[in-house]
Amino acid sequence: MYTLLEARKLIEKHIQAYSLPDTPEELYEPVKYILSLGGKRIRPALVLLACDLFSDGVESALVPAIAIEIFHNFTLLHDDIMDKSAMRRGHPTVHIKYSENVAILSGDVMSILASRLMNQSPGVVLHKVQDIFTRTAMEVCEGQQYDMNFEGLLTVAEDEYLKMIELKTAVLIAASLKIGAILGGASEKDADDLYEFGRNLGMAFQLQDDLLDTYGEQEVIGKRLGTDIVDNKKTYLMIQALGQASTDQKEELKGWLTSKDFDSDEKISAIISIFDALKIKEITETRIRDFYTRALSNLDHLNRPDERKTELYNFASFLMNRNK
Amino acid sequence: MYTLLEARKLIEKHIQAYSLPDTPEELYEPVKYILSLGGKRIRPALVLLACDLFSDGVESALVPAIAIEIFHNFTLLHDDIMDKSAMRRGHPTVHIKYSENVAILSGDVMSILASRLMNQSPGVVLHKVQDIFTRTAMEVCEGQQYDMNFEGLLTVAEDEYLKMIELKTAVLIAASLKIGAILGGASEKDADDLYEFGRNLGMAFQLQDDLLDTYGEQEVIGKRLGTDIVDNKKTYLMIQALGQASTDQKEELKGWLTSKDFDSDEKISAIISIFDALKIKEITETRIRDFYTRALSNLDHLNRPDERKTELYNFASFLMNRNK
Repeated sequence: MYTLLEARKLIEKHIQAYSLPDTPEELYEPVKYILSLGGKRIRPALVLLACDLFSDGVESALVPAIAIEIFHNFTLLHDDIMDKSAMRRGHPTVHIKYSENVAILSGDVMSILASRLMNQSPGVVLHKVQDIFTRTAMEVCEGQQYDMNFEGLLTVAEDEYLKMIELKTAVLIAASLKIGAILGGASEKDADDLYEFGRNLGMAFQLQDDLLDTYGEQEVIGKRLGTDIVDNKKTYLMIQALGQASTDQKEELKGWLTSKDFDSDEKISAIISIFDALKIKEITETRIRDFYTRALSNLDHLNRPDERKTELYNFASFLMNRNK
Repeated sequence: MYTLLEARKLIEKHIQAYSLPDTPEELYEPVKYILSLGGKRIRPALVLLACDLFSDGVESALVPAIAIEIFHNFTLLHDDIMDKSAMRRGHPTVHIKYSENVAILSGDVMSILASRLMNQSPGVVLHKVQDIFTRTAMEVCEGQQYDMNFEGLLTVAEDEYLKMIELKTAVLIAASLKIGAILGGASEKDADDLYEFGRNLGMAFQLQDDLLDTYGEQEVIGKRLGTDIVDNKKTYLMIQALGQASTDQKEELKGWLTSKDFDSDEKISAIISIFDALKIKEITETRIRDFYTRALSNLDHLNRPDERKTELYNFASFLMNRNK
């Protein structure tokens, strides 16, 4: 049985050892660069932990786990181009360090490489694994599209927002668990229960990201608080605030959301005042707890001995208690 | 037995009938748009013809054939962003008609969709088909990278150029045939012979493209001749000319290649004069005939009754005798 930490270390070792093609350098160097920037390796670790739940050994899941991580990094790479982000994990993004064309093409080759590695799944589950992987990968693109659509809107309905984060974030966490389970020989029902666990946990995870950006501790987060507010991001917090606000508060929020010329600190503190008055922090925490509770209930229902499930309970608790 | 025309019609019918997801519209409309622009559907038709060589019926090859066409269109879509092309098949390119972000993301989802459709290959050949497909898809990206690298160079060696067009164009034609053959139940050797046929034909096809851009008939081509010359493209013609030129001719060519301010017609006719003096048209035609002859020899060696091979001979001859 692997612990989460062991699974993450195993993934890290295999990612570093995986030998990508060398030429053309201009294409593959950016791939090596983004994969070297680290990250928590949560998704591939979940592939391993899910496999480990059902089988003694994670051999068959290692390459598919790396496929998931490469796919995830491909989405980050292309999202950074679309969002015009200059930094990722404390380093210049690929399109800034190299060029936009190189970033497009390196991302393309990563997406295909992910599919190529997924093709190393054992023949007996190959079709099923690729089916889940490709459906999920399309959903992640759909989520990114909805996210981009929201940028141009002044308000977004809560259920549309939840659908967006489900597609953009939760389904890949869910699919990582389901693919791992199938590689470990799980039944369809067990694999589906794990998928639901991952989906609910992924929802809680993303809502917590929203919360931490505004209400985290600056020293722990390691980046400036309130960037979502400055960028007019339609986070769960803002959507709730717009929904709960009085006429005056709504006017003030919309004033900030449409203002072109403002002092960032002033904007952040004015909006946080409204959030505080509307108890947005508490509302969001309740929603997070709700998804978290559902995730735990999915795990409770999973038909495996409790001692084998320990690491996934630990993982859920690690995610929920994180402060960055 | 299908003729090429029948195969192309069958593909067209299935592409039009294939129902893509509807939402998010912003993501899938551009996919429908680029697929509706037509094109010769050569690659998917080759999947069907190759399958038809070995089996009576092309049922199992239809969805994989559409996967190949969707993949090919994905590469066109992203290449158009990278090359900043405004028009494709007489219509605005996706990044011009919609936006660059939408073009990146719609391309991404097409690449994944291609892989998803390829996953509908029969289980017994699924691993092999995906292996060829994903390797080829990566090679196509590598070819595009080399092509972009060449833009910044004043000269390119002939063998590097041939390697580039092999990766960018020939391998996908070759893989279409090989995948079709495998879906039809061909032996490894027969599938490899067909791959070689496609690779050589693909090389001839691309060199002919280079030739037609300069020496085609304007009314037939339907676009201005000499655009490669104006754009300083390192075509086979230019590479040969730079290799064969006298010191004076080389100076003149380099003058044109580095000139920022010129009259297009003057540049075209000056460079064609040098090409003519160096017999570049004849040299290129010889090279095309060479690849074409090799392709026919691959087909001769293929262990199938002659009457079944007729359509592929016809296809080769159709490609070689095209004037646009």
